[in-house]
Amino acid sequence: MSFNSFGQLFRFTTWGESHGPALGVVVDGCPPMLPISTEMIQRDLDRRKPGQSRFTTQRREADQVQILSGTFEDERDGVTKSTGTPISLMIENTDQRSKDYSEIKDKFRPGHADYTYQQKYGIRDYKGSGRASARETAARVAAGAIARQVLAGVTIRASLVQMGPHKIDYDNFDWDQVNENPFFCADPKAAQLWEGYLDGIRKDGNSVGAVIEVVAEGVPPGWGAPIYGKLSADLASAMMSINAVKAVEIGAGFEAASLTGTENADEMRAGNAGPYFTSNKAGGILGGISNGDPVVCRFAVKPTSSILSPRQSVTVDNHDTDVVTKGRHDPCVGIRAVPIGEAMMACVLADHYLRHRGQTGREGGVGF
Amino acid sequence: MSFNSFGQLFRFTTWGESHGPALGVVVDGCPPMLPISTEMIQRDLDRRKPGQSRFTTQRREADQVQILSGTFEDERDGVTKSTGTPISLMIENTDQRSKDYSEIKDKFRPGHADYTYQQKYGIRDYKGSGRASARETAARVAAGAIARQVLAGVTIRASLVQMGPHKIDYDNFDWDQVNENPFFCADPKAAQLWEGYLDGIRKDGNSVGAVIEVVAEGVPPGWGAPIYGKLSADLASAMMSINAVKAVEIGAGFEAASLTGTENADEMRAGNAGPYFTSNKAGGILGGISNGDPVVCRFAVKPTSSILSPRQSVTVDNHDTDVVTKGRHDPCVGIRAVPIGEAMMACVLADHYLRHRGQTGREGGVGF
Amino acid sequence: MSFNSFGQLFRFTTWGESHGPALGVVVDGCPPMLPISTEMIQRDLDRRKPGQSRFTTQRREADQVQILSGTFEDERDGVTKSTGTPISLMIENTDQRSKDYSEIKDKFRPGHADYTYQQKYGIRDYKGSGRASARETAARVAAGAIARQVLAGVTIRASLVQMGPHKIDYDNFDWDQVNENPFFCADPKAAQLWEGYLDGIRKDGNSVGAVIEVVAEGVPPGWGAPIYGKLSADLASAMMSINAVKAVEIGAGFEAASLTGTENADEMRAGNAGPYFTSNKAGGILGGISNGDPVVCRFAVKPTSSILSPRQSVTVDNHDTDVVTKGRHDPCVGIRAVPIGEAMMACVLADHYLRHRGQTGREGGVGF
Amino acid sequence: MSFNSFGQLFRFTTWGESHGPALGVVVDGCPPMLPISTEMIQRDLDRRKPGQSRFTTQRREADQVQILSGTFEDERDGVTKSTGTPISLMIENTDQRSKDYSEIKDKFRPGHADYTYQQKYGIRDYKGSGRASARETAARVAAGAIARQVLAGVTIRASLVQMGPHKIDYDNFDWDQVNENPFFCADPKAAQLWEGYLDGIRKDGNSVGAVIEVVAEGVPPGWGAPIYGKLSADLASAMMSINAVKAVEIGAGFEAASLTGTENADEMRAGNAGPYFTSNKAGGILGGISNGDPVVCRFAVKPTSSILSPRQSVTVDNHDTDVVTKGRHDPCVGIRAVPIGEAMMACVLADHYLRHRGQTGREGGVGF
Repeated sequence: MSFNSFGQLFRFTTWGESHGPALGVVVDGCPPMLPISTEMIQRDLDRRKPGQSRFTTQRREADQVQILSGTFEDERDGVTKSTGTPISLMIENTDQRSKDYSEIKDKFRPGHADYTYQQKYGIRDYKGSGRASARETAARVAAGAIARQVLAGVTIRASLVQMGPHKIDYDNFDWDQVNENPFFCADPKAAQLWEGYLDGIRKDGNSVGAVIEVVAEGVPPGWGAPIYGKLSADLASAMMSINAVKAVEIGAGFEAASLTGTENADEMRAGNAGPYFTSNKAGGILGGISNGDPVVCRFAVKPTSSILSPRQSVTVDNHDTDVVTKGRHDPCVGIRAVPIGEAMMACVLADHYLRHRGQTGREGGVGF
Repeated sequence: MSFNSFGQLFRFTTWGESHGPALGVVVDGCPPMLPISTEMIQRDLDRRKPGQSRFTTQRREADQVQILSGTFEDERDGVTKSTGTPISLMIENTDQRSKDYSEIKDKFRPGHADYTYQQKYGIRDYKGSGRASARETAARVAAGAIARQVLAGVTIRASLVQMGPHKIDYDNFDWDQVNENPFFCADPKAAQLWEGYLDGIRKDGNSVGAVIEVVAEGVPPGWGAPIYGKLSADLASAMMSINAVKAVEIGAGFEAASLTGTENADEMRAGNAGPYFTSNKAGGILGGISNGDPVVCRFAVKPTSSILSPRQSVTVDNHDTDVVTKGRHDPCVGIRAVPIGEAMMACVLADHYLRHRGQTGREGGVGF
Repeated sequence: MSFNSFGQLFRFTTWGESHGPALGVVVDGCPPMLPISTEMIQRDLDRRKPGQSRFTTQRREADQVQILSGTFEDERDGVTKSTGTPISLMIENTDQRSKDYSEIKDKFRPGHADYTYQQKYGIRDYKGSGRASARETAARVAAGAIARQVLAGVTIRASLVQMGPHKIDYDNFDWDQVNENPFFCADPKAAQLWEGYLDGIRKDGNSVGAVIEVVAEGVPPGWGAPIYGKLSADLASAMMSINAVKAVEIGAGFEAASLTGTENADEMRAGNAGPYFTSNKAGGILGGISNGDPVVCRFAVKPTSSILSPRQSVTVDNHDTDVVTKGRHDPCVGIRAVPIGEAMMACVLADHYLRHRGQTGREGGVGF
Repeated sequence: MSFNSFGQLFRFTTWGESHGPALGVVVDGCPPMLPISTEMIQRDLDRRKPGQSRFTTQRREADQVQILSGTFEDERDGVTKSTGTPISLMIENTDQRSKDYSEIKDKFRPGHADYTYQQKYGIRDYKGSGRASARETAARVAAGAIARQVLAGVTIRASLVQMGPHKIDYDNFDWDQVNENPFFCADPKAAQLWEGYLDGIRKDGNSVGAVIEVVAEGVPPGWGAPIYGKLSADLASAMMSINAVKAVEIGAGFEAASLTGTENADEMRAGNAGPYFTSNKAGGILGGISNGDPVVCRFAVKPTSSILSPRQSVTVDNHDTDVVTKGRHDPCVGIRAVPIGEAMMACVLADHYLRHRGQTGREGGVGF
C-alpha cells in the first residue's frame, strides 16, 4: 500500500511532522556496496533547506541528517557502504518556536489541507500543518541522494522554468547557471528579472506559483514497464505527490495536444552507436519505456497558500471567519521544489533500473 | 508490483495483445453484493468501441465482454452479484485480418513503442503493436464499469475540451451534449466546428492531439491519503498510464503556476450542511484528500503516431528507412480516450473509497 | 494487496470457480525470451489432474490449458517465447454435471469454507465450493510451469512422505520412484503399503491427511531477503495458501525444537568450490537467505472434509442438521497436493531470483 | 515489496542493526483516534527485553521506546491519539560494549546468517549479527502494541508449550500462570521442571529449541481472505519471519495429517447467537477466513546457534576453522519469542481487520 511509501524495489517510507521531534525516511531495497555518507546526503538537503535567500521562508532549520542504519565500513577500502538492509535517515526539528496556535487550531486555512485532514481523520495536528507540511520533502530529498548513488552514469538536474506568468527563454538555458541565482533557474536573464518581480509579490504579502523542469540524462533505453508501471505514470505520481503540485507533463506535454502527427512523432536515424531520435517531443519515454533520450518532466506548483492578505474561511465549528497566515513562508514555494523534483526523478529511475534488471538481467536495452 | 495491475484494495490486472485470441482483466478486491451484468459493462465498452463514426478507426471489433468468474445469482432477489472474489472479464479479438506485417516487423514506427519494447525485452510482438496497442484500454473500461458499481452516489463524466489547438468555450458546457456528437464534447458549438477540422486532418492522412476533462461529482470529503497515496498522485498515474497521454493536471493545473496566492486558494464559507468552497481551483483535492467539491482532472493525448505521411525511421538492423503506416487508424485518438478517462477516474476513486473505509471505518468525512 | 495474487516481481493472479465456465491465471513480470508452450504447462497440469487413479476423485476434467497472451514466436529460431508481458492462461471447466445443489446450498459442510465465505461476503457460490474449491490449484500449477522456465539449473521435486499416521522410510527414498506409484511417493515400499490402507479408508467413505516434502536443488546462495521477505516466510505463506494445508516446516522444522544447539547448527567445511555444509538441518535457508544447500520444505494437508459419513452441522438459518457429502471426492487430497507444492516452490524461487537480481545485479552469491 | 515491511493496510517497516545507534519501526495505515502512549508500548517491550532472568541473555538493554511522529493530543479529552499518519518509534541501543570482533569478522558462525548475508550482499555488518540480530524483534513488538490498540475486543496471548523435548500438559494450562514463571509458560508444573533442565543446558554451554502457541480470542468470523490472502498464510509468513523459526502450524497442524476426515472436521451446532463449532481442530480458520473460534497458531524456534561448544566452520577466505561463540546469549531463545509471537499475531489480525472492513464495510461477519 502506498500511503507514506514510494517505489517498489527501491522503496522509501517517510514519517514525521513539522513540529514533532524529528522527521525521517527509511530506504529499503537499496543495492549493497554503494558508498553512502552524511556529506553526500547533506549536500542535497542543503539545497532544499529554508532560509537560503530572502525568497524562501526565514524558518531556520539546520536539516542535519543522521544515518541510523544500513551502512557499514568496508574494510577492504575503508569506505562506508550500503549493506543492502534498510537505510534509516533522521533529521531533527530544531526551530520549533513556542507559538500561539489558537488561531490555526480553530480555523481552516484556505488552500491548505486543514479541512481535509480534519474530515478524513477526525483529528488534526495543527502545529505547522502536521504531516501535510512541506517539511516532509526533506525526507524525500534524503532518499533521492541515496537513489543518485544507485544511478551511476545518470545526471539529474532541474531548473525553475516559469515563475508566475513569466517563463524562461530556452535560448538562454545553461545548466551551469542553476546554482548561481536564488531561483535554481538555468536562464540567468529570467532570474534577474524575477528578483524584482518576486520582491514585489513578497512585499505585498502575496505569493506566486511556478513550473519546474527536471531532466535526466544518461538513462539507457529499456527502463520502465508497460501499462500501469510506465515510467511516465510513475513520474506523474512522483511529482504530483509533492506538496502544492497540481500538474505534470512529460516531453511536449500539454503542447502535444495542439500538434499534428507529422509534427509530434520524433523521427529516427541510424547512428554509429545504434538508432537515434532527431527530436525529443516524447521526453525520452515511448510506451512507458525509456528510449535513451533525456527524460524530461515538468510540473506546476501552485502559489503558497499561506499569505498575509486576509482570506474568507470557516471555523472548525462552521462559522464564517477570516484567516491571515502570519509567520515565515515562502513567497514562491516552487523555488525549493527544484531539488525535490530532482530527488523524485532519481527515486523513480532507481526503482525502474532495479525492476528492469530484475526482470531482464540486463542494465538497459539489448542493443542490436 | 505494478506492471500490469492498478490499484491497491480495488485492484485490477489486464492482459492481452491486440492480435492475440483475446484480452481481458481480472478485478480483485471488489466488494460483494454489487449487481454485475454484462449489459452494464457492455454499455461502457460500446462507447470506447472503434468504428462508431468516420472519426475513429474503421477496425471492426464487437468488443463483446464475457464474465468468467466472480459473480453469482443471489436467490433472495434473483440478481447476479459480485461475490467478493476475482471478477474475470474477457473480450475476444474478432477483427484480426490476416495481414502482411513484413514492413512493421523490420522497422520501428516513429512515435510508437516498437523501439523501446525491442530494447527492453529483446523480442517484440509486432502485430498491431502487441501489448502497447490501445486495445488494452478496453480492459480498463470494463474494470471501470465494475468500479462505478462500487461508487454509488458518485457521477463520473468526461468531455473532450480541446482538439488540436481548438479549445471549447466553457460557457457552452453542457454535460447532456456529450453523447450528441462524435467527439464526446460538452460544447456543441465546438463539436460542430471540429467536424470540418478533423475531416481535413483525416483527409491529409494526418492526426491531431486532444485534451480530455474528467469530473467526478458526489465524492465525499476524506477520500485519498497523505503523501504518496494522494488522490491527485494516483489520478496522475492513472491518466498517464493511458496510451499516448503526455500530461495530467488537477483543478487549475498548469494555470495555477501563473496565479498569485490571493487568486488561487479557494475560500470557504459556512453552509447549512457544513463548510463549502466558493471556488474550485483545487479540483476537489487538498493535500491529496478530497474536499467534497467535484474532482476535476484533465489530460493531454498526443496525436496518433500512425499516419499516412512518410516519416524517417530506422530498420531493426539500424539502417535508415521511411515508414508509412497504412491501415485503420484514428485521426484523433483523444476521442476514444474520453470513456477511458472516466474508467480510470472510477477505478482510482473506488480504490480510495475502500482504502479510506478500511483505515477509518467511515464512508467519508466525519462532519462536524 | 494479496487477495488472489502471489509474488512480487514474478507475480501471478488466479481467478475462477469450480463450476463457472473457466478458471485461469495471469502471470506478470515473467522475464522475456523464455520458451513457453502449452505442452510444457500441460505436463505439470496432467500430474495434478483428477481421475488418474482410483485414489483420486473421479471427476473428469481435461484441464486443457490455453495460452491467451504474452508469448510470441521468435523468428530467429522459430521458438515461441515469453515477451515479458502478462501471460494469460485459461482452463475451461468441462465436467459440470447438472446437479441438485439444494442440500449444499442450505447447509454448511463441516471442515469446508461454506460458513466463513457466507459470513465474510454475505453471498456464497455454493456450486462445488465456488472459489474455495481445490480446482483453483490448477491455476497455480500452470503458473508454476512458467516459473520453472525462469529457474534454469534448479530442480524441484516433491514426494508424499506421510499418509495418515504412516510415514515413509527415508532409507528407501528414491526420486525416480515418485512417478511409479499413484501417490507420488519416493519410497516404493511405503507406497505399496499405502494402497491397502487407502483402499480401506476409501471404502469406509472416510478420508485421511498427508505430509508432502518439496525439495529444490541447484538454488545458489543469496536468494531470499532479510526479515519479512525471508525465503522461508514466503515458502510458508505459499504452502499455507494451498487448500487444506495446516502446517509448514523448513529443514528440521518442528524437530528443531527438540534439538540442542550442538545438534542443530549445520557445520561448515572448506571445499574446493567454496565452503559447504556437512548437514542440512537448516533446509537450505539461513536468516531467510538460501545457503546453496537443497531447499527443503514440508507441509501437512488435512483429510478431505467431504466424506460419506454423516456429520453434525447447521443450516444457513441456524438449525441443527446432518451433512453427508456425496459426490466424487479424493480420499486423500494430499496426493494431488504434490505437484501443487512443487509449483508453489517454483513460484517462490522464481520471484526471489528476480528480486535478488534486481537488488544486486547478480544471479546468486558473490563467491569468495 | 516486502523486504523489511509487513502487512498491507496496517503496514510496518523495521530498520536498524544490533550495534548501530538505534533501531525502530514505522507503522503506516494505523486508524486515527486510537490512544497511543509510550507506556503502552513499553509494557510489551519489557516482556521481550533481555536480562529478565538467568535464562535469557545478560545483555542489558533498556529498550526505551520513543514516539517520534503520528500522535497528537486530542484537546477534547486530553488523550494522545493516533492521527492516521505514520507512527515512528525508535529504540536507542545502549549496551554496545566495545568489543573485539576479529573472530566473528573472519569466520562464519554455524547456524547464523553470516555466510548467507556475505553471499547475498558481498558486505556484512558482523557486529552483533547486524540486521540478522534478534534485536530487530523489539521493533515488531512495538508495532504489535499499536496493533493491539486497533483490535478492541480481541485478546492475544501466548505460551511456551515445549522446551527441547519436554512438552507441557494441556490439562494444567492456565493463562494466568504465563507471567508467573521465567518461561512464559501456562503450565506451572512444566515450568518448574524446565528450570532444572534449562540450567543444565546453560551450564553445558549448550542451547535448546522450543515451541510457542499463540491464541487470539474474540476474532469475529469473516476476517482473512481467499487464496493468497488467507489468514493462515499470513500467519505462517508472520511467524516464519521471526528469527530462528523453522515451522508453523494452525490448529491441529501436522497432527491433522494423521487424522481421518471423521476425526478432523469440526462439527457445528445451532446456538442462540448463531452456529458454533463443537471442536477447534481448524484453529479458528476455514478456507483462510476466521470462523469465530479462537485463532490458534504454533511455531517452532530452533536452539540458539551461539553456543560455547566449539563447532566446525570456515573462514571468510575458505579455510577450515573452529568457532566458539562467547558472549551473552540465550540458552533458549524460544522464551523471548513468546511476546514476539503475540505481536505478530496482533499485526496480522489488525491488517486483516482493516482489509475486511475496506472490502465489505463491516467489522466482521454478516450474522444470519
